[in-house]
Amino acid sequence: MKMKMEQALGREIKKARESLQKSQEELAFDAEVHRTYVSLIERGQKSPTLAVIARLARALRMKPSELLRRVEAQFEQSKL
Amino acid sequence: MKMKMEQALGREIKKARESLQKSQEELAFDAEVHRTYVSLIERGQKSPTLAVIARLARALRMKPSELLRRVEAQFEQSKL
Repeated sequence: MKMKMEQALGREIKKARESLQKSQEELAFDAEVHRTYVSLIERGQKSPTLAVIARLARALRMKPSELLRRVEAQFEQSKL
Repeated sequence: MKMKMEQALGREIKKARESLQKSQEELAFDAEVHRTYVSLIERGQKSPTLAVIARLARALRMKPSELLRRVEAQFEQSKL
């Protein structure tokens, strides 16, 4: 089954959040988004806007392009 | 004045579209978005979702991460 890009983004955000030992609540606070929204994004159930992607990336201490680069890498792997 | 990320994205999309000699209508068709939406995005008046960014990037023959990399480069320059 082809993985949706939103699911790949959700996984990368969760992975980066956990590696910083942040809870969803902490990430939500740092990125100025609602906690339930972080949960939806991590599960790939929302396609966040550029503005939200940028705020999440900043809170995860990476550039938005780096976050998408990781998403693409995962996305490519899922096609194997 | 600080440039908004959406405006930087709009400029990069327009630049890439023009370098491919595509009209807004053609880009909209290729990316499966409405033409008026392309116009709003190019003017930085909408923050497109990941799904739309991915479709626009594909239609512009680049990876989403490459599009954001260009946005960041422009964004950095605007701070000078």
